[in-house]
Amino acid sequence: MKIRFINALILTMEEERPLFYGEVHVEGNRLTYVGPADEFNEPFDRIINAEGNLLMPGFKNAHTHSPMTFLRSYADDLPLYEWLHKAVFPLEDKLQPGDQYVLSKVAFAEYLTSGVTACFDMYYSPLETAQAAIDVGFRAALVGTVTKYKESVCEMKAAFHTINKMHPLVNYHLGFHAEYTSTPEILKELAKAAHELKVPIWSHISETENEVQECIKRHGVTPAVYFDKLGLYKYGGGGFHGVHFTDEDFAVYKKHGLHIVTNPSSNTKLASGIAPINQFLKEGINVAIGTDGPASNNALDFFREMWLVTGLAKLREQDAAVVDAYDVLKMATVNGAEAMGLNEAKYLSVGSLADLIMLDMQQPNMQPVNNIEKNIVYAGSKVNVLLTMIDGKILYEDGEFHLDEPISEIYRKAQEITERLKR
Amino acid sequence: MKIRFINALILTMEEERPLFYGEVHVEGNRLTYVGPADEFNEPFDRIINAEGNLLMPGFKNAHTHSPMTFLRSYADDLPLYEWLHKAVFPLEDKLQPGDQYVLSKVAFAEYLTSGVTACFDMYYSPLETAQAAIDVGFRAALVGTVTKYKESVCEMKAAFHTINKMHPLVNYHLGFHAEYTSTPEILKELAKAAHELKVPIWSHISETENEVQECIKRHGVTPAVYFDKLGLYKYGGGGFHGVHFTDEDFAVYKKHGLHIVTNPSSNTKLASGIAPINQFLKEGINVAIGTDGPASNNALDFFREMWLVTGLAKLREQDAAVVDAYDVLKMATVNGAEAMGLNEAKYLSVGSLADLIMLDMQQPNMQPVNNIEKNIVYAGSKVNVLLTMIDGKILYEDGEFHLDEPISEIYRKAQEITERLKR
Repeated sequence: MKIRFINALILTMEEERPLFYGEVHVEGNRLTYVGPADEFNEPFDRIINAEGNLLMPGFKNAHTHSPMTFLRSYADDLPLYEWLHKAVFPLEDKLQPGDQYVLSKVAFAEYLTSGVTACFDMYYSPLETAQAAIDVGFRAALVGTVTKYKESVCEMKAAFHTINKMHPLVNYHLGFHAEYTSTPEILKELAKAAHELKVPIWSHISETENEVQECIKRHGVTPAVYFDKLGLYKYGGGGFHGVHFTDEDFAVYKKHGLHIVTNPSSNTKLASGIAPINQFLKEGINVAIGTDGPASNNALDFFREMWLVTGLAKLREQDAAVVDAYDVLKMATVNGAEAMGLNEAKYLSVGSLADLIMLDMQQPNMQPVNNIEKNIVYAGSKVNVLLTMIDGKILYEDGEFHLDEPISEIYRKAQEITERLKR
Repeated sequence: MKIRFINALILTMEEERPLFYGEVHVEGNRLTYVGPADEFNEPFDRIINAEGNLLMPGFKNAHTHSPMTFLRSYADDLPLYEWLHKAVFPLEDKLQPGDQYVLSKVAFAEYLTSGVTACFDMYYSPLETAQAAIDVGFRAALVGTVTKYKESVCEMKAAFHTINKMHPLVNYHLGFHAEYTSTPEILKELAKAAHELKVPIWSHISETENEVQECIKRHGVTPAVYFDKLGLYKYGGGGFHGVHFTDEDFAVYKKHGLHIVTNPSSNTKLASGIAPINQFLKEGINVAIGTDGPASNNALDFFREMWLVTGLAKLREQDAAVVDAYDVLKMATVNGAEAMGLNEAKYLSVGSLADLIMLDMQQPNMQPVNNIEKNIVYAGSKVNVLLTMIDGKILYEDGEFHLDEPISEIYRKAQEITERLKR
């Protein structure tokens, strides 16, 4: 399939390549031309007139729990402990094989409406999520969810070997849930696995003040320092949340070139705090953005997340000048791709994976035009997403989904599962 | 024109009337039936099958500066002082008659995409904004913008008399910009005007800590207490922002039954702080929601605002349980209508003004269904707005605008004006 986008405003996200008008060609799952309008005599299967709308790399949702759609709006406005113990855990315990496959698809559909072309997904039974991604055509990096309750290091290693050979749309990273759901033995095993496989490792980190204090009580140091001492970060990796970071934590992240994924909606709604994004940037640490899962967020709306990354940083630093909109777009695309091991999906450039979105510039929220990048970050919305392409395939266009099954079927099955879990 | 909506999920926003499936009839600019499905033998001009989607009262944007679309994304990521003095003021000074008329229409179009059916608008030259609202078919409450630099009390009174007789779609309230842009003489004149006309009065209030401290320096008390002393609140009214409130301020608001309009996006992006919404609610003060203007926000997205009202309250109180989603929906509809003097546009009920919206429940962000009200507040987006009706007329449906002129013409004119202002 050869697709030609013409009359497009193009934001490649490459350093020092400003916005320009031109065209983009897609052949198979790769970009074959990104440049000014020209005459091309070769045949195309489809020519899409962008009519001045914007093409850019798809957003990378660098932390989420896609299968948790069954918990969307099930138990909000509750204190955290009650939320977890009375709502989340009891329903999770009732999940049956096949459930996550369906529930993930609802999330993938929502990502498509939000211009998200890849997610970094942490949840149990990653094979189901991976299979759902493959069947839908979504790109998913999956990450281990080792805890002392459920997933073992052995299971994680098995998933690593299986999923990394499964399909080009999916990859798998080592990971564990968090310090407080681990034991020192498990963490040592995890470090051994990372060393053996020579790969990065990921986890939730310093999401709440309480988590940090409990870790200090148990181990005398913060989670990042503790993980470093155990040798977990020898081959890199990173953490999700990073709301409560100390100077020592920043130093660990710098030393190992670790990534941090910020989840501003979730941290806000669960009253966890505001992550020190400005300091992460100053320290030169790679910051990516995630929605977190639909249980806490409850939307999977990348425009909300982008706005909050800079908005909350401004609030935290009491300075309206910190964290520029362009930095946020970089976090949402390039930095996310780096974190997730998707280095071929960073830019709109020849040879890159054809993971791109078209944003509607003719919506009133984009008018009049003063600064397009700032418009996207500060005024953008799902309503601007005209088209989402992953791996050269258009999965969402003009409000219609092109998935492996009708969206109404996915909804019906997800509702059926949700009703069963609540019984 | 008689319109019948069938197969709708209906949220009337009336106390103790839960969500139900049924139908809504509109005749002229009023609702004539809101109830269960039934047989109706009378003829209708149009029957709209809602297909299970949700009908509810439109959102009331209770604080904005609609004509400021020319400043959208013009100067973000700047310190407040620089933003105002290097960007906002110099461009505002170049506005010519007729400019606001066009620039407001861009904002009205954006409100329609966001399910907003009325705005409470503060800006100079309110007649232009009022005329734009009338021509588009938008409902606008306008409010005086008296300052020591521009609008005089005399001009405000003239606007009061003119606009309140102009058209049923518009009304006008007394108002002044803020304490720091006034003089004691002006404020005394304003109090006199309120007493003479026996009407409420409005202003920005305690938006920044600095504003409060400067007022204390000048007058020994906070703005709310100062205004009360001057007798401004004898006939009620309220304030926009209310981020930095003292116990005395709360007492003033309670005593006079004043309204507060919160603007969370703007307060976040300008690093002004988080308003004490939970305390306003506890004190029984009527809280409404506004986007503030496109210069600071930069979007006019009511879903963002609703989410932030509760999200930021949770963050401020460090308690994930405060400010329930349903309270937010009430602020966004009923409370806003009360603040703006639109008591006939509060509910979906027989006799009410036909100001309603239809929200798409078949988007993935609304699936699966656990709690529809929470879905709207926590997961909703402009992408869910299928239809916006004001005064019985459908102004926005399935992404198409039905205005007095093509939306592309509005954009073209607004861009032309914006380019001229920047020259």
